[in-house]
Amino acid sequence: MKIDLNADLGEGFGNYTCGLDEEIVRYISSANIACGFHASDPLVMDKTIRIAKENQVAVGAHPGFPDLVGFGRRNLQVDPAELKAMVQYQIGALYAFCRARRIPLRHVKPHGAMYNMAARDERLAFAIAEGVWELDDSLILVGLSGSLLLSAARQVGLKTASEVFADRGYRSDGTLVPRGQAGDLITQEDVMIERVIKMVKEGTVVSVDGKEIPVEADTVCLHGDGKQAVLFARRLREELERAGIVVAA
Amino acid sequence: MKIDLNADLGEGFGNYTCGLDEEIVRYISSANIACGFHASDPLVMDKTIRIAKENQVAVGAHPGFPDLVGFGRRNLQVDPAELKAMVQYQIGALYAFCRARRIPLRHVKPHGAMYNMAARDERLAFAIAEGVWELDDSLILVGLSGSLLLSAARQVGLKTASEVFADRGYRSDGTLVPRGQAGDLITQEDVMIERVIKMVKEGTVVSVDGKEIPVEADTVCLHGDGKQAVLFARRLREELERAGIVVAA
Amino acid sequence: MKIDLNADLGEGFGNYTCGLDEEIVRYISSANIACGFHASDPLVMDKTIRIAKENQVAVGAHPGFPDLVGFGRRNLQVDPAELKAMVQYQIGALYAFCRARRIPLRHVKPHGAMYNMAARDERLAFAIAEGVWELDDSLILVGLSGSLLLSAARQVGLKTASEVFADRGYRSDGTLVPRGQAGDLITQEDVMIERVIKMVKEGTVVSVDGKEIPVEADTVCLHGDGKQAVLFARRLREELERAGIVVAA
Amino acid sequence: MKIDLNADLGEGFGNYTCGLDEEIVRYISSANIACGFHASDPLVMDKTIRIAKENQVAVGAHPGFPDLVGFGRRNLQVDPAELKAMVQYQIGALYAFCRARRIPLRHVKPHGAMYNMAARDERLAFAIAEGVWELDDSLILVGLSGSLLLSAARQVGLKTASEVFADRGYRSDGTLVPRGQAGDLITQEDVMIERVIKMVKEGTVVSVDGKEIPVEADTVCLHGDGKQAVLFARRLREELERAGIVVAA
Repeated sequence: MKIDLNADLGEGFGNYTCGLDEEIVRYISSANIACGFHASDPLVMDKTIRIAKENQVAVGAHPGFPDLVGFGRRNLQVDPAELKAMVQYQIGALYAFCRARRIPLRHVKPHGAMYNMAARDERLAFAIAEGVWELDDSLILVGLSGSLLLSAARQVGLKTASEVFADRGYRSDGTLVPRGQAGDLITQEDVMIERVIKMVKEGTVVSVDGKEIPVEADTVCLHGDGKQAVLFARRLREELERAGIVVAA
Repeated sequence: MKIDLNADLGEGFGNYTCGLDEEIVRYISSANIACGFHASDPLVMDKTIRIAKENQVAVGAHPGFPDLVGFGRRNLQVDPAELKAMVQYQIGALYAFCRARRIPLRHVKPHGAMYNMAARDERLAFAIAEGVWELDDSLILVGLSGSLLLSAARQVGLKTASEVFADRGYRSDGTLVPRGQAGDLITQEDVMIERVIKMVKEGTVVSVDGKEIPVEADTVCLHGDGKQAVLFARRLREELERAGIVVAA
Repeated sequence: MKIDLNADLGEGFGNYTCGLDEEIVRYISSANIACGFHASDPLVMDKTIRIAKENQVAVGAHPGFPDLVGFGRRNLQVDPAELKAMVQYQIGALYAFCRARRIPLRHVKPHGAMYNMAARDERLAFAIAEGVWELDDSLILVGLSGSLLLSAARQVGLKTASEVFADRGYRSDGTLVPRGQAGDLITQEDVMIERVIKMVKEGTVVSVDGKEIPVEADTVCLHGDGKQAVLFARRLREELERAGIVVAA
Repeated sequence: MKIDLNADLGEGFGNYTCGLDEEIVRYISSANIACGFHASDPLVMDKTIRIAKENQVAVGAHPGFPDLVGFGRRNLQVDPAELKAMVQYQIGALYAFCRARRIPLRHVKPHGAMYNMAARDERLAFAIAEGVWELDDSLILVGLSGSLLLSAARQVGLKTASEVFADRGYRSDGTLVPRGQAGDLITQEDVMIERVIKMVKEGTVVSVDGKEIPVEADTVCLHGDGKQAVLFARRLREELERAGIVVAA
């Protein structure tokens, strides 16, 4: 049994820092690296690739909407051709730093509003999947478990990684409980760990209304935006290994 | 005898157009394509790569300073590490569109203030040369004839293309007469054509103070920013071919 | 009888031009001037204020979403506090140039996607109306005839100007026929002119399904983005004056 | 005897925070508020104006170069007309938030590279001074003690505030010891406090080569970028008051 742990790295910008990259990187197996649209800049990308290389984590591009002030979290009405081009641009930009440091680019995970919109909108999902495929058909596309992004990726011929969340509640149809609704967030660390182990070992999770539902868990999203988040990442990794689960990209 | 004719393409942005790309592309052998910092955006880059491919011109990256409002023409005090990273970022971004359309990326030509600063500042010249070399040591670096950028490129191990201008005056030391000084611009088309042919055939140009000086001419910079410029490009190409000079990248 | 003719001016950016400002300005009575978010920059704003002053047209701010590459035409999911702040920022920026040139700022007209979203979303409509009111309660807020933006403005205590379009079809409920649907665009100049005169004189327009519906027409939106558009503006102005209608802000 | 203590506030951006604004604001008498070019955004500006109002500090605009990634610290080759327009734009933008919250705008202090370039370049100094004067001739222009910016401001007819630094060494000609040279930084708090008190009481400072030189001290620049900086601000204020010096804008 095997699971990937991923986190978003390199989300600083110029004079601004963001996230405890050098700490969280020690507990993950895959890093999603921002590409300059929702966060980051060339120097930050260069530095982040070095950190990822030193820590031997798998590197992926983390493209977002061109919305620095909104951190890529605001829905933006893009058409599929624009979206495909903006994804290709960002992947290419990150690829340059991978190439300069002689490490492979392994995956692509859209960020924020782009991730959420592509989970539900088939045209946007295909735009991303085709954009990735045109660049390199061996790249893995990471998306929300059960999302249209993953099904588009599979139809296009890409490998996929189905992402789950330790700290989010699920509805019976496999979608996340929207933020702000009852049961949206899991806050107890023990419960989070138990849920992740169950997702990996049994392929199921208990939904907000008490049903055991199937969920495909290839990778778990972790956060590096605070001391507590980093401590949880460390503990989750230890508990997974104790449960006989290999953490690897 | 052989010469390359190059022009800057893809300098529109969003709703804004710039240059007669689809016309000038017919007379050149190499296109320098803007990468989103001084001009262009992902959709414009995608479209420009298609135009370049259809017209079978060699494609190069045209990185500039992150200064859209100044069109990359204002000197910006960057340090070598920043410059190297911003050049790598932009080359990578353009490379994505080359890869998606299955055409090779052949050269890199810095834009505007970056081109001029790197011609005179050794640290910046090496930052660019090393940045290009780390990505792909088969890329050709295009710079001002006689500039520090070209010598840095050669020391780093890159192939170079020495650029000359049909419409600019030269000083006896091989540098351009600064804009605004007497003799800065050549305006008669016949004179421009004659000078280019002499540069290619004899490797010399007559300087502003009347001396015949050596000049290395691998590529001539053309403009696509107006009907007259395009007509001149067509005529120059015809006259070069009439003079037995092959136009090729 | 009286009508205002308005057009969007100052939508260039840096090296890029946009629109025939110096021509269209001769036929309008109000100019909506871009404020640097969807288009324009400080130098363009300064120049446009000078043009407006020379031609004695009333000046208004034309704030848009912070989306230069999308020209402010893409819907962006903003919350009311963000929207209010971005509107205030842009009005203040334009106000500086009015003050420097000693001309009054008279109105505010949101641009593109902001205009359309605020026409239909009450929370966004109030955010804009309150933002304007806090700055200067004598400013006129311009919005789509019959829109929520206008009703919010009135509730807040602002004067309003109800905008109509010569070249768009109306539905029986007073809303515009969405672009892409049958009857969305009026293309014959004679019909456009006749419709505008009827809107001003009788306060009605014939809807796409043949009903005569009431419409409040304080100002007509003209375009300056091509020779044909400018010629139409001139003709419309002549025909309005011939029909005894005064063109004034 | 009286001195103003100023600090730069509101230098966050979107998701990014910067500086301990709510702490440093308690010890200063004037706040320089970023205007969205080198840092800040409309929401941050709105929030910062509220903080300044609550703490009853005098509010000034802190315009910078349009260089978010470089935090306005990189020299940019602007011409005087561009510079004047970008300063007016930013002052106007901040003025909007002052007006919305019913507090006056009192001063203007250029940021970073703009501050340094205008200290030494007469054309840039006059561009800023004239830009401010055109907007409001009662605004105070804050600049480096002894700089060309201050003399331009006086010639234009503006009131000025001459700024000194507690933590920087001075050369015998009254200019700052450039960073990186011996004696550039004063690091002992006791020495800093003693120097400030001497500047205020006697109008002199001891230069790096041991001479007592005249210095005009209207305002002292403080920093809010760390716990230590805030503690120093508190202590400096206490010591100034103990020495019988009034801290006021």
